[in-house]
Amino acid sequence: MPLVRIDLRKGTTAAYRTSLSNGIHQALVESIGIPVKDRFHVITERDTDALLYDNSYLDIPRTNNIVVVQITMSRGRTLDQKRTLYRRMAEILQEKPGLRLQDLFINLIEVEKENWSFGNGEAQYAK
Amino acid sequence: MPLVRIDLRKGTTAAYRTSLSNGIHQALVESIGIPVKDRFHVITERDTDALLYDNSYLDIPRTNNIVVVQITMSRGRTLDQKRTLYRRMAEILQEKPGLRLQDLFINLIEVEKENWSFGNGEAQYAK
Amino acid sequence: MPLVRIDLRKGTTAAYRTSLSNGIHQALVESIGIPVKDRFHVITERDTDALLYDNSYLDIPRTNNIVVVQITMSRGRTLDQKRTLYRRMAEILQEKPGLRLQDLFINLIEVEKENWSFGNGEAQYAK
Repeated sequence: MPLVRIDLRKGTTAAYRTSLSNGIHQALVESIGIPVKDRFHVITERDTDALLYDNSYLDIPRTNNIVVVQITMSRGRTLDQKRTLYRRMAEILQEKPGLRLQDLFINLIEVEKENWSFGNGEAQYAK
Repeated sequence: MPLVRIDLRKGTTAAYRTSLSNGIHQALVESIGIPVKDRFHVITERDTDALLYDNSYLDIPRTNNIVVVQITMSRGRTLDQKRTLYRRMAEILQEKPGLRLQDLFINLIEVEKENWSFGNGEAQYAK
Repeated sequence: MPLVRIDLRKGTTAAYRTSLSNGIHQALVESIGIPVKDRFHVITERDTDALLYDNSYLDIPRTNNIVVVQITMSRGRTLDQKRTLYRRMAEILQEKPGLRLQDLFINLIEVEKENWSFGNGEAQYAK
């Protein structure tokens, strides 16, 4: 159910991007109980002038390796769960594919459970 | 007012994508009363490794023809209206351009009416 | 904290797009108190058939120069602040790079403060 949009600068390998996607999904599974098969990711490589970021906002030094992860998911996670999600995602991606902790930008958009259709024209998560 | 983002794999014709967009808009008009002229769509074709999906989550067999439709719209539709929207969109796209029911993934993001400006720097939908 | 997605048709110069991005950011800073360094923008140029818009909805004449600005930001701005944001953004972009007032389409997605991680796997805005 999360729909994940991943934006990063051009210049990485397909293997690197797959590893990023795998790690993001693993963090969702481990931290907030997303089912292993519930994976829908869109990845976009960007030219230099098409992904703009501040390289020191909040005193966090960012580089051109920045990865912007925007996750649309169902409402209902606690603050603790969100904190765990951010921390685990940063840890996992640091280990593989080797993303600096400072270069992971995450944003969550929360929606109602009834706002999803996974196919067949049905609202599978609605009560 | 809906801002619709449509993502699909590369390999379709322009006519196919126009037909998809037309059908999605028709479903919005028929199901939840979107005005005919209220149409703003962004369509992105994706490489194989840039649109990742699970091919059996919730026991729905998906193929590379998957279409991910993310619709930002004003809050206020009932569950029944959302169900009708999902069903009609799947029906219409199945008929034309021939999308399998299982290959339509829909997500709604709901925002306040005052969160739109359609031009002229004004909030046309605000009270 | 705002994550800004800017979509427009192909055919503009890099300088034009930079100017757009600068103006959008300036409007956010002036109107709703976004910190100057809090800037994260994603810009996508679109083929003709990949960015579809109605050229007269709400009697606003739009052209192929249309710019669609979708801003994800923290909840909490008043209607007055949003109105100021729309107006200032339109004014600034009209002056530079010369965007017609009618060609600016804005949508806001509001999320909780705890829905952001700016790096280091932390929720910097959470209480």
